[in-house]
Amino acid sequence: MKILVCNVGSTSLKYRLIDMGGEEALAWGRIERVGSHNSTYCHKDAVGTEFEMDVHIPDYKTGIGLMINNLINDGKGVVGSLKEISAVGFKVVHARGVSGTQLLNEEILQAMEDYNGIAPAHNPPYISAIKQFREIMPDIPLVGSFETAFHRSIPAHAYLYGIPYELYEKYGIRKYGFHGASHEYVSARVCELLKRKDLRIVTCHLGGSGSLCAVKNGVSVDTTMGFSLQSGILNNNRCGDIDPFIPIYLMEDLGYSLEEVKQLLTKQSGLLGLSGVSNDVRDIEEAAEKGDERALKCIDTYCYNIKKYIGSYASAMGGLDVIAFAGGIGENGVRIRERVCQGLEFMGVYLDRERNNVRGRETVISTDGSPVKVMVIPTNEEIIVARKTKKYLEES
Amino acid sequence: MKILVCNVGSTSLKYRLIDMGGEEALAWGRIERVGSHNSTYCHKDAVGTEFEMDVHIPDYKTGIGLMINNLINDGKGVVGSLKEISAVGFKVVHARGVSGTQLLNEEILQAMEDYNGIAPAHNPPYISAIKQFREIMPDIPLVGSFETAFHRSIPAHAYLYGIPYELYEKYGIRKYGFHGASHEYVSARVCELLKRKDLRIVTCHLGGSGSLCAVKNGVSVDTTMGFSLQSGILNNNRCGDIDPFIPIYLMEDLGYSLEEVKQLLTKQSGLLGLSGVSNDVRDIEEAAEKGDERALKCIDTYCYNIKKYIGSYASAMGGLDVIAFAGGIGENGVRIRERVCQGLEFMGVYLDRERNNVRGRETVISTDGSPVKVMVIPTNEEIIVARKTKKYLEES
Repeated sequence: MKILVCNVGSTSLKYRLIDMGGEEALAWGRIERVGSHNSTYCHKDAVGTEFEMDVHIPDYKTGIGLMINNLINDGKGVVGSLKEISAVGFKVVHARGVSGTQLLNEEILQAMEDYNGIAPAHNPPYISAIKQFREIMPDIPLVGSFETAFHRSIPAHAYLYGIPYELYEKYGIRKYGFHGASHEYVSARVCELLKRKDLRIVTCHLGGSGSLCAVKNGVSVDTTMGFSLQSGILNNNRCGDIDPFIPIYLMEDLGYSLEEVKQLLTKQSGLLGLSGVSNDVRDIEEAAEKGDERALKCIDTYCYNIKKYIGSYASAMGGLDVIAFAGGIGENGVRIRERVCQGLEFMGVYLDRERNNVRGRETVISTDGSPVKVMVIPTNEEIIVARKTKKYLEES
Repeated sequence: MKILVCNVGSTSLKYRLIDMGGEEALAWGRIERVGSHNSTYCHKDAVGTEFEMDVHIPDYKTGIGLMINNLINDGKGVVGSLKEISAVGFKVVHARGVSGTQLLNEEILQAMEDYNGIAPAHNPPYISAIKQFREIMPDIPLVGSFETAFHRSIPAHAYLYGIPYELYEKYGIRKYGFHGASHEYVSARVCELLKRKDLRIVTCHLGGSGSLCAVKNGVSVDTTMGFSLQSGILNNNRCGDIDPFIPIYLMEDLGYSLEEVKQLLTKQSGLLGLSGVSNDVRDIEEAAEKGDERALKCIDTYCYNIKKYIGSYASAMGGLDVIAFAGGIGENGVRIRERVCQGLEFMGVYLDRERNNVRGRETVISTDGSPVKVMVIPTNEEIIVARKTKKYLEES
């Protein structure tokens, strides 16, 4: 069984074709800046094709067409025809009243559209791309694995907010959590490597979009993102946890419109807004090293956010066995990991400085005697989506 | 030196006249339901007067008049005339660009008014009451000790939000923190009792309005309330931490007006909104014991909020020496304290069940061997306000 996993961003499309027999990738590609005149496209496959080029890709439809052409490649590609692809799996984000793995029919797309307002950077491009996939490949099932699915095990005391309970019952306003595929992959991988399931793990998925998750005995019991992707630690352009009266003060006292507040909190905030340098931790670290004070404060705040949540989740789980770092910053951010773990010795976290000097490799970075294991686990969200898609096909 | 400390609520006025020599209270009183037809007034003093009565008190002015009459009591009271009162000290809440201890002049009242929007339950009644005090006793200095003052030591990485830095620089949007007088009193009292200053303490001021504070070496390094009194743990009617997109979703998708959102988050949320029973933890606990499921979830959520922050602040301080409970719920909530501490054994918290069965008394409730001391410290915000007022008079 071959499953094509597609990851849709606001102007990007990444894909990976996976043979589910041995779970190996047959092809991999990435289209950037869809809709602009300097789009780029790179593609690599198991039969030796590999290229990267600049090409004008005006819309997802053109991008999807290019992807199909290169997968088939006139009979010299990794599939003979589209019929060999059993399904396309999408890591969809958020839908009203819907989670888990779902066939992306009209009803589900409508439920996603209902949450366009609270996932403005994610839902609209996904919906648009999925509709174009459906036009181009009407006979192939399009299956969505929602980012919220892994967090369905979170108990009520962790998902309820201090607002009228009717808002939860009637409109589903509660904590949902995101990055489920990554937290699921990373925590399962930790259990596999340590050959134990009865672990209390904090998975730190740190990327442009990042969240932490408390995983106890294999299931999510809490996570930093909530009703929307706006809460938790700092994100690239999104604010993370703020006082709920900040949006209200902006509107009531400073004259912002609702739309301006949304723009501010989703596009001009987070790492970018605080640092004033960039939305990329690498740039901010560089500026901080050169003495930029705002950049320094931004990195401090980011690490402090993460450190506090680790303590918070250790309390929630009655202790801690593993901290696992994943995502671009988690896998490569040597200094970030070091600063996050600094001062956590009181709960048994002892980082090994030498071992921590590692990038993008699955490994243990705590000392041998450290009661809490600290690990780097490069995430693999695609394989989780592919497995869920396969399971969906087999069960439906 | 005699200082009158006044605590103004939205419809209440509490006062305590303190002789600063031995710091003993000369008189104490409480007026409830100002402005309604069933106001109540009780007064007690050191020379034997003690009464409680129903009386129509249409406004603060009438209330203040009654208070003065009873303090003087035709020459039989605790002061011969108003001239004996060196100052009135107020535990004021929040003002734009102002903290510390301040003479409540026009400028300061204006700064308080600037934050009416973000402290709607606190600032307007305070401003109104202070103006009436000024009319009635124009010759006595009115001194305000701001609730934010104790938190001025919080470092930037803990007070900055993930929003554009300009909003902090230009409009002062940052974490301020509240209940400063209580956190200051409780943490100082812990240091006094344990005869050490180098302690990492989490003070839990749990009342209708509640917050936690991380106190390291005697100074606040973090606290759960923020720019406004809306964040942190559940409060009686206020929401505490929520996803920042909840107010936005309510307005954009559910048609709430800005004013309705404010009302919802300040008056219908928190313990009341979640439980549907009451805004008082005692009522909710009673309902939960009788099997009310929402009440049970509310208590669970409340305790979970607190437990997570304790872990978070232990991480922030690099460990924990003391947890101190104060405020109505903190001093009397036997079950709440037990549930909060449950599962914190991994960081050295061992509650003694017998010792914990105590209400309103200063005592240690952890086991003798517990690495972290857990204490009940009945708070005394008035004495902090009185001391700060005295210090202000002496230094100005």
